[in-house]
Amino acid sequence: NSSESSRPTKVHELCVYEINERDRGSPAYLRLGQKPVNSLGDLVPFTNKIYSADLEKRLGITAGICILIRNLPEVKGDRYEAIYSFHLGDYGQIAVQGAYITTEETYLSVTGGTGIFAGAYGQVKLQQLVFPFKLFYTFYLQGLANDLPAELLVTPVTPSPAVEASAAAKAVQPGATGPNYSD
Amino acid sequence: NSSESSRPTKVHELCVYEINERDRGSPAYLRLGQKPVNSLGDLVPFTNKIYSADLEKRLGITAGICILIRNLPEVKGDRYEAIYSFHLGDYGQIAVQGAYITTEETYLSVTGGTGIFAGAYGQVKLQQLVFPFKLFYTFYLQGLANDLPAELLVTPVTPSPAVEASAAAKAVQPGATGPNYSD
Amino acid sequence: NSSESSRPTKVHELCVYEINERDRGSPAYLRLGQKPVNSLGDLVPFTNKIYSADLEKRLGITAGICILIRNLPEVKGDRYEAIYSFHLGDYGQIAVQGAYITTEETYLSVTGGTGIFAGAYGQVKLQQLVFPFKLFYTFYLQGLANDLPAELLVTPVTPSPAVEASAAAKAVQPGATGPNYSD
Repeated sequence: NSSESSRPTKVHELCVYEINERDRGSPAYLRLGQKPVNSLGDLVPFTNKIYSADLEKRLGITAGICILIRNLPEVKGDRYEAIYSFHLGDYGQIAVQGAYITTEETYLSVTGGTGIFAGAYGQVKLQQLVFPFKLFYTFYLQGLANDLPAELLVTPVTPSPAVEASAAAKAVQPGATGPNYSD
Repeated sequence: NSSESSRPTKVHELCVYEINERDRGSPAYLRLGQKPVNSLGDLVPFTNKIYSADLEKRLGITAGICILIRNLPEVKGDRYEAIYSFHLGDYGQIAVQGAYITTEETYLSVTGGTGIFAGAYGQVKLQQLVFPFKLFYTFYLQGLANDLPAELLVTPVTPSPAVEASAAAKAVQPGATGPNYSD
Repeated sequence: NSSESSRPTKVHELCVYEINERDRGSPAYLRLGQKPVNSLGDLVPFTNKIYSADLEKRLGITAGICILIRNLPEVKGDRYEAIYSFHLGDYGQIAVQGAYITTEETYLSVTGGTGIFAGAYGQVKLQQLVFPFKLFYTFYLQGLANDLPAELLVTPVTPSPAVEASAAAKAVQPGATGPNYSD
Protein backbone atom coordinates (compact mmCIF):
# COMPACT_ATOMS: atom_id res chain seq x y z
CA ASN A 1 0.00 0.00 0.00
CA SER A 2 1.70 3.14 -1.23
CA SER A 3 -1.10 5.48 -0.18
CA GLU A 4 0.86 7.07 2.66
CA SER A 5 4.27 7.20 1.04
CA SER A 6 5.48 10.03 -1.19
CA ARG A 7 4.47 10.18 -4.82
CA PRO A 8 6.88 8.32 -7.11
CA THR A 9 9.01 10.53 -9.36
CA LYS A 10 10.87 7.98 -11.46
CA VAL A 11 10.77 8.92 -15.14
CA HIS A 12 9.21 6.23 -17.34
CA GLU A 13 9.89 6.61 -21.05
CA LEU A 14 7.14 5.33 -23.33
CA CYS A 15 7.12 5.53 -27.14
CA VAL A 16 4.09 4.99 -29.38
CA TYR A 17 3.03 5.67 -32.94
CA GLU A 18 -0.17 7.49 -33.88
CA ILE A 19 -1.31 6.62 -37.39
CA ASN A 20 -4.29 7.82 -39.39
CA GLU A 21 -5.25 5.00 -41.74
CA ARG A 22 -8.14 7.08 -43.14
CA ASP A 23 -10.79 4.66 -41.95
CA ARG A 24 -12.18 6.56 -38.96
CA GLY A 25 -13.56 9.68 -40.68
CA SER A 26 -10.84 11.68 -38.95
CA PRO A 27 -9.97 14.50 -38.74
CA ALA A 28 -13.23 16.46 -38.96
CA TYR A 29 -12.02 19.89 -39.99
CA LEU A 30 -14.76 22.33 -38.90
CA ARG A 31 -14.15 25.59 -40.78
CA LEU A 32 -16.10 27.64 -38.23
CA GLY A 33 -13.70 30.58 -38.58
CA GLN A 34 -15.28 30.95 -42.04
CA LYS A 35 -12.14 32.32 -43.64
CA PRO A 36 -10.56 31.11 -46.90
CA VAL A 37 -7.42 30.10 -44.97
CA ASN A 38 -7.24 28.19 -41.70
CA SER A 39 -7.99 30.69 -38.94
CA LEU A 40 -8.94 31.11 -35.29
CA GLY A 41 -12.44 29.71 -34.94
CA ASP A 42 -11.66 26.50 -36.80
CA LEU A 43 -11.94 23.36 -34.68
CA VAL A 44 -10.63 19.90 -35.51
CA PRO A 45 -11.96 16.91 -33.57
CA PHE A 46 -9.88 13.84 -34.34
CA THR A 47 -9.26 10.19 -33.48
CA ASN A 48 -6.42 8.05 -34.79
CA LYS A 49 -4.94 4.62 -34.07
CA ILE A 50 -2.15 4.01 -31.58
CA TYR A 51 0.43 1.30 -32.21
CA SER A 52 3.30 0.06 -30.08
CA ALA A 53 6.70 1.55 -30.88
CA ASP A 54 7.75 -1.64 -32.68
CA LEU A 55 4.57 -1.37 -34.78
CA GLU A 56 3.68 -4.96 -33.90
CA LYS A 57 0.65 -4.27 -31.69
CA ARG A 58 -2.45 -2.15 -31.93
CA LEU A 59 -2.85 -0.54 -28.50
CA GLY A 60 -5.73 1.87 -28.89
CA ILE A 61 -6.72 5.30 -30.11
CA THR A 62 -6.24 9.00 -29.64
CA ALA A 63 -9.37 11.10 -29.05
CA GLY A 64 -9.72 14.84 -28.72
CA ILE A 65 -9.65 18.19 -30.43
CA CYS A 66 -7.23 20.61 -32.05
CA ILE A 67 -8.08 24.31 -31.80
CA LEU A 68 -6.63 26.32 -34.69
CA ILE A 69 -4.74 29.19 -33.10
CA ARG A 70 -2.84 30.73 -35.97
CA ASN A 71 -2.06 30.12 -39.59
CA LEU A 72 1.69 30.40 -40.26
CA PRO A 73 1.94 31.21 -43.98
CA GLU A 74 5.69 31.88 -43.76
CA VAL A 75 6.31 28.20 -42.99
CA LYS A 76 3.17 26.87 -44.71
CA GLY A 77 1.97 25.54 -41.39
CA ASP A 78 -0.49 26.01 -38.55
CA ARG A 79 -0.35 26.37 -34.81
CA TYR A 80 -2.98 24.43 -32.86
CA GLU A 81 -3.78 23.98 -29.20
CA ALA A 82 -4.35 20.23 -28.81
CA ILE A 83 -6.36 18.65 -26.01
CA TYR A 84 -6.65 14.89 -26.22
CA SER A 85 -6.16 11.50 -24.65
CA PHE A 86 -4.33 8.31 -25.52
CA HIS A 87 -6.67 5.41 -24.74
CA LEU A 88 -4.74 2.16 -24.43
CA GLY A 89 -7.43 -0.40 -23.61
CA ASP A 90 -7.07 -2.12 -20.26
CA TYR A 91 -3.80 -0.27 -19.61
CA GLY A 92 -5.74 2.96 -19.21
CA GLN A 93 -5.61 6.51 -20.49
CA ILE A 94 -3.11 9.39 -20.67
CA ALA A 95 -4.47 12.95 -21.00
CA VAL A 96 -2.35 15.65 -22.68
CA GLN A 97 -2.58 19.31 -23.63
CA GLY A 98 -0.31 21.69 -25.50
CA ALA A 99 0.94 23.08 -28.77
CA TYR A 100 0.72 21.16 -32.02
CA ILE A 101 2.65 23.04 -34.68
CA THR A 102 2.44 21.29 -38.02
CA THR A 103 6.02 22.13 -39.00
CA GLU A 104 7.87 21.56 -35.71
CA GLU A 105 8.50 19.08 -32.96
CA THR A 106 6.74 20.18 -29.74
CA TYR A 107 6.37 19.11 -26.14
CA LEU A 108 2.92 18.84 -24.55
CA SER A 109 1.92 18.54 -20.91
CA VAL A 110 0.72 15.24 -19.51
CA THR A 111 -2.26 16.33 -17.41
CA GLY A 112 -3.39 13.01 -15.93
CA GLY A 113 -3.95 9.32 -16.37
CA THR A 114 -5.99 6.28 -15.42
CA GLY A 115 -5.28 2.57 -14.98
CA ILE A 116 -1.54 1.90 -14.95
CA PHE A 117 -1.15 5.61 -15.78
CA ALA A 118 -3.08 6.78 -12.71
CA GLY A 119 -1.30 9.75 -11.15
CA ALA A 120 0.74 10.41 -14.31
CA TYR A 121 2.38 13.76 -14.84
CA GLY A 122 5.23 14.95 -17.04
CA GLN A 123 5.70 15.74 -20.71
CA VAL A 124 5.41 14.14 -24.12
CA LYS A 125 7.48 14.92 -27.21
CA LEU A 126 5.47 14.99 -30.45
CA GLN A 127 7.32 14.31 -33.72
CA GLN A 128 5.44 14.50 -36.98
CA LEU A 129 6.53 12.10 -39.71
CA VAL A 130 3.83 12.61 -42.34
CA PHE A 131 1.43 15.51 -41.84
CA PRO A 132 -1.12 14.78 -40.44
CA PHE A 133 -1.12 11.01 -40.74
CA LYS A 134 1.90 9.63 -38.87
CA LEU A 135 3.29 10.84 -35.56
CA PHE A 136 5.78 9.46 -33.09
CA TYR A 137 5.49 10.25 -29.38
CA THR A 138 7.98 9.89 -26.55
CA PHE A 139 6.34 10.18 -23.15
CA TYR A 140 8.36 11.06 -20.06
CA LEU A 141 5.92 9.92 -17.38
CA GLN A 142 6.27 10.43 -13.65
CA GLY A 143 3.94 9.57 -10.79
CA LEU A 144 3.34 5.96 -11.82
CA ALA A 145 2.95 3.35 -9.09
CA ASN A 146 4.78 0.64 -11.03
CA ASP A 147 7.13 0.07 -13.94
CA LEU A 148 5.46 -0.14 -17.33
CA PRO A 149 4.71 -3.62 -18.73
CA ALA A 150 7.20 -5.15 -21.16
CA GLU A 151 4.63 -4.98 -23.97
CA LEU A 152 4.88 -1.18 -23.87
CA LEU A 153 8.66 -1.04 -23.54
CA VAL A 154 9.57 -2.53 -26.90
CA THR A 155 12.41 -1.17 -29.04
CA PRO A 156 11.01 1.46 -31.40
CA VAL A 157 11.14 1.15 -35.15
CA THR A 158 13.17 4.21 -36.17
CA PRO A 159 10.69 6.99 -36.93
CA SER A 160 10.45 7.77 -40.65
CA PRO A 161 7.75 8.76 -43.12
CA ALA A 162 7.67 5.17 -44.40
CA VAL A 163 6.63 3.48 -41.16
CA GLU A 164 3.52 1.30 -41.18
CA ALA A 165 2.00 -1.01 -38.64
CA SER A 166 2.50 -4.73 -39.20
CA ALA A 167 -0.22 -6.45 -41.18
CA ALA A 168 -1.24 -8.43 -38.07
CA ALA A 169 -1.54 -5.27 -35.96
CA LYS A 170 -3.54 -3.46 -38.64
CA ALA A 171 -5.86 -6.45 -38.78
CA VAL A 172 -6.01 -6.60 -34.95
CA GLN A 173 -5.24 -10.30 -35.09
CA PRO A 174 -4.94 -12.32 -31.87
CA GLY A 175 -1.55 -11.61 -30.31
CA ALA A 176 -1.20 -8.37 -32.29
CA THR A 177 -3.17 -6.12 -29.95
CA GLY A 178 -2.87 -4.82 -26.43
CA PRO A 179 -5.34 -6.17 -23.87
CA ASN A 180 -8.87 -5.05 -24.78
CA TYR A 181 -7.41 -2.40 -27.10
CA SER A 182 -9.42 0.82 -27.41
CA ASP A 183 -11.22 1.43 -30.66
CA ASN B 1 3.29 25.11 6.41
CA SER B 2 3.45 22.06 4.18
CA SER B 3 5.21 23.82 1.32
CA GLU B 4 8.54 22.07 1.85
CA SER B 5 7.25 18.62 2.74
CA SER B 6 6.41 15.95 0.19
CA ARG B 7 3.08 15.98 -1.62
CA PRO B 8 0.36 14.07 0.22
CA THR B 9 -0.69 10.79 -1.40
CA LYS B 10 -3.56 9.66 0.84
CA VAL B 11 -6.54 8.55 -1.28
CA HIS B 12 -9.73 10.51 -0.53
CA GLU B 13 -12.91 8.91 -1.81
CA LEU B 14 -15.65 11.36 -2.77
CA CYS B 15 -19.04 10.44 -4.26
CA VAL B 16 -21.46 12.85 -5.94
CA TYR B 17 -24.49 12.73 -8.21
CA GLU B 18 -24.76 14.66 -11.47
CA ILE B 19 -28.38 15.21 -12.49
CA ASN B 20 -29.85 16.95 -15.51
CA GLU B 21 -33.21 18.38 -14.42
CA ARG B 22 -33.77 19.81 -17.92
CA ASP B 23 -33.82 23.40 -16.72
CA ARG B 24 -30.36 24.56 -17.88
CA GLY B 25 -30.74 24.17 -21.66
CA SER B 26 -28.21 21.35 -21.49
CA PRO B 27 -26.81 19.51 -23.34
CA ALA B 28 -26.39 21.60 -26.50
CA TYR B 29 -25.88 18.95 -29.15
CA LEU B 30 -24.02 20.67 -32.00
CA ARG B 31 -24.36 18.42 -35.08
CA LEU B 32 -21.30 19.92 -36.75
CA GLY B 33 -20.29 16.57 -38.22
CA GLN B 34 -23.38 17.03 -40.42
CA LYS B 35 -24.13 13.34 -40.69
CA PRO B 36 -27.52 11.65 -40.10
CA VAL B 37 -26.01 9.70 -37.19
CA ASN B 38 -23.81 11.04 -34.40
CA SER B 39 -20.32 11.34 -35.84
CA LEU B 40 -16.86 12.84 -35.36
CA GLY B 41 -17.28 16.59 -35.69
CA ASP B 42 -20.26 16.73 -33.33
CA LEU B 43 -19.61 18.70 -30.14
CA VAL B 44 -21.72 18.71 -26.98
CA PRO B 45 -21.24 21.51 -24.45
CA PHE B 46 -23.09 20.69 -21.24
CA THR B 47 -23.77 21.78 -17.66
CA ASN B 48 -25.69 19.78 -15.07
CA LYS B 49 -26.35 19.99 -11.33
CA ILE B 50 -24.18 18.29 -8.72
CA TYR B 51 -25.73 16.92 -5.54
CA SER B 52 -24.15 15.34 -2.49
CA ALA B 53 -24.09 11.53 -2.46
CA ASP B 54 -27.00 11.45 0.03
CA LEU B 55 -28.95 13.70 -2.35
CA GLU B 56 -29.68 16.10 0.51
CA LYS B 57 -27.51 19.03 -0.67
CA ARG B 58 -27.02 20.92 -3.88
CA LEU B 59 -23.27 21.41 -4.22
CA GLY B 60 -22.79 22.95 -7.64
CA ILE B 61 -22.55 22.19 -11.33
CA THR B 62 -20.59 20.41 -13.99
CA ALA B 63 -19.36 22.51 -16.95
CA GLY B 64 -17.56 21.43 -20.06
CA ILE B 65 -17.73 19.66 -23.38
CA CYS B 66 -18.10 16.19 -24.83
CA ILE B 67 -16.41 15.54 -28.17
CA LEU B 68 -18.15 12.81 -30.18
CA ILE B 69 -15.43 10.34 -31.14
CA ARG B 70 -17.34 7.41 -32.53
CA ASN B 71 -20.85 6.13 -32.92
CA LEU B 72 -21.16 2.54 -31.70
CA PRO B 73 -24.22 1.16 -33.52
CA GLU B 74 -23.55 -2.41 -32.30
CA VAL B 75 -24.33 -1.33 -28.72
CA LYS B 76 -26.58 1.62 -29.63
CA GLY B 77 -24.16 3.95 -27.93
CA ASP B 78 -21.50 6.59 -28.47
CA ARG B 79 -17.94 7.18 -27.41
CA TYR B 80 -17.08 10.71 -26.35
CA GLU B 81 -13.97 12.41 -25.06
CA ALA B 82 -15.17 14.49 -22.11
CA ILE B 83 -13.35 17.54 -20.74
CA TYR B 84 -15.10 19.24 -17.85
CA SER B 85 -15.02 20.49 -14.30
CA PHE B 86 -17.01 19.92 -11.15
CA HIS B 87 -17.62 23.32 -9.54
CA LEU B 88 -18.56 22.95 -5.90
CA GLY B 89 -18.99 26.54 -4.73
CA ASP B 90 -16.60 27.64 -2.00
CA TYR B 91 -15.11 24.15 -1.82
CA GLY B 92 -13.51 24.71 -5.22
CA GLN B 93 -13.24 22.89 -8.51
CA ILE B 94 -12.09 19.50 -9.82
CA ALA B 95 -11.01 19.23 -13.48
CA VAL B 96 -11.34 15.90 -15.33
CA GLN B 97 -10.72 14.44 -18.77
CA GLY B 98 -11.36 11.08 -20.34
CA ALA B 99 -13.70 8.67 -22.04
CA TYR B 100 -17.46 8.90 -21.68
CA ILE B 101 -19.02 5.83 -23.28
CA THR B 102 -22.80 5.95 -23.08
CA THR B 103 -23.17 2.23 -22.49
CA GLU B 104 -20.30 1.54 -20.07
CA GLU B 105 -18.76 2.55 -16.80
CA THR B 106 -15.47 4.41 -17.38
CA TYR B 107 -12.63 5.97 -15.44
CA LEU B 108 -11.48 9.52 -16.21
CA SER B 109 -8.33 11.35 -15.17
CA VAL B 110 -8.46 14.03 -12.52
CA THR B 111 -6.25 16.74 -14.02
CA GLY B 112 -6.31 19.39 -11.30
CA GLY B 113 -8.26 21.25 -8.66
CA THR B 114 -8.73 24.48 -6.76
CA GLY B 115 -9.79 25.39 -3.23
CA ILE B 116 -9.86 22.33 -0.99
CA PHE B 117 -9.08 20.35 -4.14
CA ALA B 118 -5.89 22.29 -4.93
CA GLY B 119 -3.18 19.88 -6.04
CA ALA B 120 -5.67 17.10 -6.74
CA TYR B 121 -4.71 14.19 -8.94
CA GLY B 122 -6.09 10.68 -9.39
CA GLN B 123 -9.10 9.14 -11.09
CA VAL B 124 -12.87 9.26 -11.07
CA LYS B 125 -15.27 6.42 -11.85
CA LEU B 126 -18.30 7.44 -13.93
CA GLN B 127 -21.46 5.32 -13.67
CA GLN B 128 -24.44 6.18 -15.80
CA LEU B 129 -27.84 5.54 -14.27
CA VAL B 130 -30.18 7.15 -16.80
CA PHE B 131 -28.66 8.28 -20.10
CA PRO B 132 -27.81 11.16 -20.18
CA PHE B 133 -29.63 12.56 -17.16
CA LYS B 134 -28.34 10.82 -14.02
CA LEU B 135 -24.76 9.87 -13.25
CA PHE B 136 -22.94 8.74 -10.15
CA TYR B 137 -19.25 9.52 -9.64
CA THR B 138 -16.69 8.08 -7.27
CA PHE B 139 -13.54 10.20 -7.07
CA TYR B 140 -10.28 8.75 -5.83
CA LEU B 141 -8.42 11.97 -5.07
CA GLN B 142 -4.80 12.31 -4.05
CA GLY B 143 -2.64 15.35 -3.41
CA LEU B 144 -5.09 17.09 -1.07
CA ALA B 145 -3.69 19.08 1.84
CA ASN B 146 -6.46 18.08 4.26
CA ASP B 147 -9.23 15.55 4.77
CA LEU B 148 -12.49 16.36 3.03
CA PRO B 149 -15.23 18.08 5.08
CA ALA B 150 -17.94 15.91 6.63
CA GLU B 151 -20.56 17.50 4.38
CA LEU B 152 -18.91 15.80 1.38
CA LEU B 153 -18.36 12.45 3.09
CA VAL B 154 -22.00 11.47 3.57
CA THR B 155 -23.24 7.94 3.01
CA PRO B 156 -24.39 7.62 -0.61
CA VAL B 157 -27.91 6.78 -1.59
CA THR B 158 -27.50 3.54 -3.54
CA PRO B 159 -27.18 4.49 -7.22
CA SER B 160 -30.28 3.54 -9.24
CA PRO B 161 -32.25 5.00 -12.13
CA ALA B 162 -34.89 6.20 -9.65
CA VAL B 163 -32.69 8.51 -7.61
CA GLU B 164 -33.74 12.14 -7.23
CA ALA B 165 -32.44 15.00 -5.14
CA SER B 166 -34.46 15.88 -2.04
CA ALA B 167 -37.10 18.55 -2.52
CA ALA B 168 -35.13 20.92 -0.30
CA ALA B 169 -31.93 20.42 -2.29
CA LYS B 170 -33.74 20.89 -5.61
CA ALA B 171 -35.22 24.12 -4.24
CA VAL B 172 -31.79 25.15 -2.89
CA GLN B 173 -33.35 25.89 0.47
CA PRO B 174 -31.24 27.15 3.37
CA GLY B 175 -29.38 24.19 4.85
CA ALA B 176 -29.82 22.16 1.66
CA THR B 177 -26.86 23.55 -0.29
CA GLY B 178 -23.12 23.57 0.00
CA PRO B 179 -21.45 26.88 0.87
CA ASN B 180 -22.01 29.39 -1.94
CA TYR B 181 -22.97 26.53 -4.27
CA SER B 182 -22.06 26.98 -7.94
CA ASP B 183 -24.87 27.60 -10.36
CA ASN C 1 19.29 13.53 -10.72
CA SER C 2 16.03 14.10 -8.88
CA SER C 3 14.24 11.17 -10.45
CA GLU C 4 14.13 9.09 -7.28
CA SER C 5 13.54 11.86 -4.77
CA SER C 6 10.09 13.14 -3.81
CA ARG C 7 8.30 15.69 -5.95
CA PRO C 8 9.04 19.28 -4.95
CA THR C 9 6.16 21.14 -3.28
CA LYS C 10 7.58 24.64 -2.87
CA VAL C 11 5.05 27.25 -4.02
CA HIS C 12 6.37 29.49 -6.81
CA GLU C 13 4.40 32.67 -7.37
CA LEU C 14 4.37 33.94 -10.95
CA CYS C 15 2.47 36.98 -12.22
CA VAL C 16 1.80 37.81 -15.87
CA TYR C 17 -0.47 40.05 -17.91
CA GLU C 18 -2.67 38.79 -20.75
CA ILE C 19 -3.55 41.56 -23.19
CA ASN C 20 -5.67 41.51 -26.33
CA GLU C 21 -4.26 44.17 -28.64
CA ARG C 22 -6.90 43.34 -31.29
CA ASP C 23 -4.34 42.24 -33.84
CA ARG C 24 -4.75 38.45 -33.65
CA GLY C 25 -8.37 38.08 -34.80
CA SER C 26 -9.24 36.96 -31.28
CA PRO C 27 -11.60 36.04 -29.78
CA ALA C 28 -13.60 34.12 -32.39
CA TYR C 29 -17.07 34.10 -30.88
CA LEU C 30 -18.88 31.13 -32.45
CA ARG C 31 -22.61 31.63 -31.81
CA LEU C 32 -23.38 27.93 -32.24
CA GLY C 33 -26.04 28.03 -29.54
CA GLN C 34 -28.00 30.09 -32.08
CA LYS C 35 -29.81 32.15 -29.46
CA PRO C 36 -30.12 35.95 -29.40
CA VAL C 37 -28.18 36.05 -26.11
CA ASN C 38 -24.99 34.19 -25.25
CA SER C 39 -26.01 30.63 -24.41
CA LEU C 40 -24.79 27.08 -23.92
CA GLY C 41 -23.57 25.91 -27.32
CA ASP C 42 -21.50 29.03 -27.97
CA LEU C 43 -17.76 28.40 -28.20
CA VAL C 44 -15.00 30.99 -28.06
CA PRO C 45 -11.52 30.02 -29.27
CA PHE C 46 -9.02 32.72 -28.33
CA THR C 47 -5.35 33.71 -28.31
CA ASN C 48 -3.90 36.79 -26.63
CA LYS C 49 -0.45 38.15 -25.81
CA ILE C 50 1.36 37.46 -22.54
CA TYR C 51 3.61 40.11 -21.02
CA SER C 52 5.83 39.99 -17.94
CA ALA C 53 4.30 41.46 -14.77
CA ASP C 54 6.38 44.64 -15.17
CA LEU C 55 5.04 44.98 -18.72
CA GLU C 56 8.59 45.31 -20.04
CA LYS C 57 8.82 41.97 -21.88
CA ARG C 58 6.68 40.06 -24.31
CA LEU C 59 6.76 36.45 -23.14
CA GLY C 60 4.30 34.64 -25.36
CA ILE C 61 0.63 33.89 -25.91
CA THR C 62 -2.42 32.24 -24.49
CA ALA C 63 -4.17 29.66 -26.66
CA GLY C 64 -7.38 27.76 -26.04
CA ILE C 65 -11.13 27.87 -25.81
CA CYS C 66 -13.88 29.24 -23.61
CA ILE C 67 -17.11 27.23 -23.47
CA LEU C 68 -20.13 29.41 -22.70
CA ILE C 69 -21.89 27.75 -19.77
CA ARG C 70 -24.46 30.27 -18.69
CA ASN C 71 -25.51 33.82 -19.36
CA LEU C 72 -25.88 35.78 -16.11
CA PRO C 73 -28.26 38.62 -16.98
CA GLU C 74 -28.56 39.71 -13.33
CA VAL C 75 -24.91 40.78 -13.34
CA LYS C 76 -24.66 41.44 -17.08
CA GLY C 77 -22.02 38.75 -17.33
CA ASP C 78 -21.30 35.21 -18.49
CA ARG C 79 -19.90 32.06 -17.00
CA TYR C 80 -17.45 30.14 -19.17
CA GLU C 81 -15.43 26.98 -18.72
CA ALA C 82 -11.95 27.91 -19.95
CA ILE C 83 -9.37 25.39 -21.18
CA TYR C 84 -6.14 26.95 -22.36
CA SER C 85 -2.38 27.17 -22.14
CA PHE C 86 0.16 29.89 -21.49
CA HIS C 87 2.98 29.44 -24.00
CA LEU C 88 6.10 31.27 -22.87
CA GLY C 89 8.61 30.52 -25.61
CA ASP C 90 11.69 28.57 -24.51
CA TYR C 91 10.49 28.64 -20.90
CA GLY C 92 7.70 26.24 -21.81
CA GLN C 93 3.97 25.95 -21.33
CA ILE C 94 1.45 25.97 -18.46
CA ALA C 95 -1.94 24.28 -19.02
CA VAL C 96 -4.99 25.47 -17.05
CA GLN C 97 -8.71 24.70 -16.76
CA GLY C 98 -11.55 26.25 -14.81
CA ALA C 99 -14.20 28.91 -14.48
CA TYR C 100 -13.96 32.25 -16.24
CA ILE C 101 -16.75 34.49 -14.97
CA THR C 102 -16.70 37.84 -16.70
CA THR C 103 -17.72 39.77 -13.59
CA GLU C 104 -15.65 38.03 -10.89
CA GLU C 105 -12.15 37.00 -9.91
CA THR C 106 -11.76 33.21 -10.16
CA TYR C 107 -9.20 30.50 -9.51
CA LEU C 108 -8.41 27.91 -12.17
CA SER C 109 -6.56 24.60 -11.90
CA VAL C 110 -3.04 24.27 -13.25
CA THR C 111 -3.21 20.90 -15.00
CA GLY C 112 0.35 20.53 -16.29
CA GLY C 113 3.41 22.12 -17.78
CA THR C 114 6.45 21.70 -20.00
CA GLY C 115 9.98 23.10 -20.02
CA ILE C 116 10.78 24.86 -16.76
CA PHE C 117 7.12 24.23 -15.86
CA ALA C 118 7.37 20.45 -16.29
CA GLY C 119 5.51 18.72 -13.48
CA ALA C 120 3.60 21.89 -12.55
CA TYR C 121 0.45 21.67 -10.47
CA GLY C 122 -1.45 24.18 -8.35
CA GLN C 123 -3.78 27.08 -9.01
CA VAL C 124 -3.90 30.41 -10.82
CA LYS C 125 -5.90 33.49 -9.82
CA LEU C 126 -7.52 35.32 -12.75
CA GLN C 127 -8.31 39.02 -12.34
CA GLN C 128 -10.04 40.86 -15.12
CA LEU C 129 -9.10 44.50 -15.59
CA VAL C 130 -10.88 45.36 -18.85
CA PHE C 131 -13.34 42.80 -20.22
CA PRO C 132 -12.19 40.91 -22.24
CA PHE C 133 -8.96 42.65 -23.18
CA LYS C 134 -6.74 42.91 -20.10
CA LEU C 135 -6.25 40.27 -17.43
CA PHE C 136 -3.78 39.79 -14.61
CA TYR C 137 -2.82 36.30 -13.42
CA THR C 138 -1.10 35.14 -10.26
CA PHE C 139 0.09 31.55 -10.52
CA TYR C 140 0.80 29.47 -7.42
CA LEU C 141 2.90 26.73 -8.98
CA GLN C 142 4.16 23.59 -7.27
CA GLY C 143 6.09 20.63 -8.61
CA LEU C 144 8.82 22.66 -10.33
CA ALA C 145 12.35 21.28 -10.34
CA ASN C 146 14.00 24.69 -9.94
CA ASP C 147 13.30 28.27 -8.92
CA LEU C 148 11.86 30.47 -11.66
CA PRO C 149 14.31 32.69 -13.60
CA ALA C 150 14.69 36.31 -12.51
CA GLU C 151 13.14 37.51 -15.77
CA LEU C 152 9.81 36.03 -14.65
CA LEU C 153 10.03 37.24 -11.05
CA VAL C 154 9.89 40.98 -11.73
CA THR C 155 7.85 43.35 -9.56
CA PRO C 156 4.37 43.69 -11.06
CA VAL C 157 2.96 46.94 -12.29
CA THR C 158 -0.12 47.41 -10.10
CA PRO C 159 -3.07 45.90 -12.01
CA SER C 160 -5.46 48.57 -13.32
CA PRO C 161 -7.60 49.12 -16.42
CA ALA C 162 -4.99 51.56 -17.73
CA VAL C 163 -2.06 49.14 -17.95
CA GLU C 164 -0.29 48.74 -21.28
CA ALA C 165 2.85 46.93 -22.31
CA SER C 166 5.93 49.08 -22.88
CA ALA C 167 6.43 50.27 -26.43
CA ALA C 168 9.55 48.10 -26.73
CA ALA C 169 7.68 44.99 -25.57
CA LYS C 170 4.76 45.66 -27.91
CA ALA C 171 7.24 46.04 -30.75
CA VAL C 172 9.08 42.86 -29.61
CA GLN C 173 12.37 44.74 -29.78
CA PRO C 174 15.63 43.01 -28.86
CA GLY C 175 15.89 42.85 -25.08
CA ALA C 176 12.12 43.32 -24.70
CA THR C 177 11.06 39.70 -25.18
CA GLY C 178 11.51 36.42 -23.41
CA PRO C 179 13.74 33.82 -25.09
CA ASN C 180 12.17 32.71 -28.37
CA TYR C 181 8.82 34.16 -27.25
CA SER C 182 5.71 32.33 -28.46
CA ASP C 183 3.62 34.05 -31.10
